[in-house]
Amino acid sequence: MEERQRVRRPGGRAARVGAAVHQAVTDLISERGYGKFTVGDVAARAGVADSSVYRRWGNLEALLTDVALTRLNARSPMPDTGSLAGDLHTYAANVAREITGPEGLALLRLAVALSGNGQQGRRALDDLLAERARHLQSMLDRAGERGERAPDALEVLDHVMAPMYIRVLFGLDPLTPEYVDGLVDRLL
Amino acid sequence: MEERQRVRRPGGRAARVGAAVHQAVTDLISERGYGKFTVGDVAARAGVADSSVYRRWGNLEALLTDVALTRLNARSPMPDTGSLAGDLHTYAANVAREITGPEGLALLRLAVALSGNGQQGRRALDDLLAERARHLQSMLDRAGERGERAPDALEVLDHVMAPMYIRVLFGLDPLTPEYVDGLVDRLL
Repeated sequence: MEERQRVRRPGGRAARVGAAVHQAVTDLISERGYGKFTVGDVAARAGVADSSVYRRWGNLEALLTDVALTRLNARSPMPDTGSLAGDLHTYAANVAREITGPEGLALLRLAVALSGNGQQGRRALDDLLAERARHLQSMLDRAGERGERAPDALEVLDHVMAPMYIRVLFGLDPLTPEYVDGLVDRLL
Repeated sequence: MEERQRVRRPGGRAARVGAAVHQAVTDLISERGYGKFTVGDVAARAGVADSSVYRRWGNLEALLTDVALTRLNARSPMPDTGSLAGDLHTYAANVAREITGPEGLALLRLAVALSGNGQQGRRALDDLLAERARHLQSMLDRAGERGERAPDALEVLDHVMAPMYIRVLFGLDPLTPEYVDGLVDRLL
């Protein structure tokens, strides 16, 4: 693995294959849903050989995990606006944008599916959540260092993230800016 | 359909088949996860012919929907303790118990999967949520009639149900009684 990565250049064939395969997975999850496609379907959609997918990712679960981790982590950079209120409002708006729309929803569903997917999926989801929690905590720590009274990361999860996730997962009312801001104001 | 139901007696063969098939679905979702089994697997596990399943439910999606609706609705009767605080604490504790453990978690995952499952799954989930919302609303209305200041049903969803659902779906900390009571106290 290390050996192979060392010779991969950004923009090279490996990167192109990686991007095409990731996009194919995201498209298939949006169109068919989790559990409704095979490695062969992904390879065909990405225009690569099945063996390329197996060689790089091993199996479908590992590939799905890689896609979920990469996409969900790339999407929500933590804001640093100088105030806790500013940071939380921006962060909540970013998350709302990320999980709205077919692609974001598909990734959120994938995260839920991973949690039920044996050791490997479970560990992948734990890693993803731990990385998110670390980022969120460092945002809250910055507020504490400025002398602001910051909530716990778990309070942010329970009362800002969870309502948005559930509304999107259950297809309830759209996440309007007023609604998202209201969740943050209520917490602060 | 009406014709067939009229001749079905409780405790008769149709009821036994129905119960066996529902249990088989719940077991398979717990063991393998959504999307990982077929009508044939369900029939084999329930000890009935594939054709019995197809005749009664039409297809796997319809069967999964029926199971989710029946189970999730049967499980959380709305309490009527005489006070809003008592009702909400009891209701939250019931929901926590229902979604904890492999079977409840499997059903919660199924609800999420249904939301991504085309028209039929979408409608089934909408029906389920609407029925739940009606029950919750009537509990809140009773509080209003007694002169208590009751929150909106959506506030209960956002700040009591959603945190519990997300913690269970993402496999985070267990739902202790203190945690569940704390969510209700915070809302009230």
